Amino acid sequence: MNQYIQAVPLEKSYRLVNHGPTTLVSAASGGEQDVMAAAWACGLDFSPPKLTVVLDKSTRTRELIEREGRFVVQLPTVPQAQLTHYVGNHSLNDEPGKLQTAGVEIFHMTGFEDLPFVAGCAAWLACQLIPEPHNQTSYDLFIAEVIGAWADSRVFRSGHWEFASADPALRTLHYIAGGQFYAIGDEIVVNEQ
Amino acid sequence: MNQYIQAVPLEKSYRLVNHGPTTLVSAASGGEQDVMAAAWACGLDFSPPKLTVVLDKSTRTRELIEREGRFVVQLPTVPQAQLTHYVGNHSLNDEPGKLQTAGVEIFHMTGFEDLPFVAGCAAWLACQLIPEPHNQTSYDLFIAEVIGAWADSRVFRSGHWEFASADPALRTLHYIAGGQFYAIGDEIVVNEQ
Repeated sequence: MNQYIQAVPLEKSYRLVNHGPTTLVSAASGGEQDVMAAAWACGLDFSPPKLTVVLDKSTRTRELIEREGRFVVQLPTVPQAQLTHYVGNHSLNDEPGKLQTAGVEIFHMTGFEDLPFVAGCAAWLACQLIPEPHNQTSYDLFIAEVIGAWADSRVFRSGHWEFASADPALRTLHYIAGGQFYAIGDEIVVNEQ
Repeated sequence: MNQYIQAVPLEKSYRLVNHGPTTLVSAASGGEQDVMAAAWACGLDFSPPKLTVVLDKSTRTRELIEREGRFVVQLPTVPQAQLTHYVGNHSLNDEPGKLQTAGVEIFHMTGFEDLPFVAGCAAWLACQLIPEPHNQTSYDLFIAEVIGAWADSRVFRSGHWEFASADPALRTLHYIAGGQFYAIGDEIVVNEQ
């Protein structure tokens, strides 16, 4: 865990995912851990903060989440585009060394020692599953409450993203398809009316 | 409807929202029409394409959608940041002239004449509600199938976003909070592995 990681108040945590970044979803159970890519993660509520994430039935990460009811949603940065694509296209079920091959480094957060956090991301959201069997079975759609949030203070400070002044390597990724990502771009501020 | 608007094959339509843009949601019923901003719109499935969108109970747009079961999700562009913020912060219930004040221009798409489309956007998704009363009531979460898709061919061509070579004014918006948006940024392409 690096010196720049700072807790984000839960009531501001929706701002971490509001701009639609691609995420990495990680979970652990019984000594096993996995990380997958999820472009379909989205805010759902402000207070308590909730989010949705779509987790395909073929993923090992989903099995770990269904077992433990806890997971991490984190925002990979520009230098992690290849890592993100790799963990999104390879399954732990077929490739036990997947995380090592992808270059995933795991760390732990105080108070959340059961959860695997991916180093090098811009922000992290610890999530508690709200079981909704119909959504999970019919749509692969998972709903969770955000129970912890952190960000790299070089790019998210005082409740605001500071992409304009931060190192471009700290920008979030936004996935399209077939290995094509976009980094988040220029800031636009409009008047409150 | 301008000359650049071209249909997008439904199987490629998930790519329009995959990078997490802020959206405008529009609907009409009984001669009334409304447009709201929704940052929480997200892909849900590829085939048939589905998406989720969070619609607050206080919005008139939600009432129109619940009545008709059809709506449009569209992607506003950089010059529409102020418009997006305005329709997101004012309710038709309080302000009957809201769309006019915001500068919203409505057009219609052949075969979808019942739906109001917002001019000047980068892409449009015509949606058919899949009724899920528990999600709608408990979470303000709406699930829909995408039944029509179009994009401005100056920025989305042959199934791909072309933000790098297109006019920056055609970039999508990604909302944070308090009038702060980001435009989508630079392209990053990684190797398929």
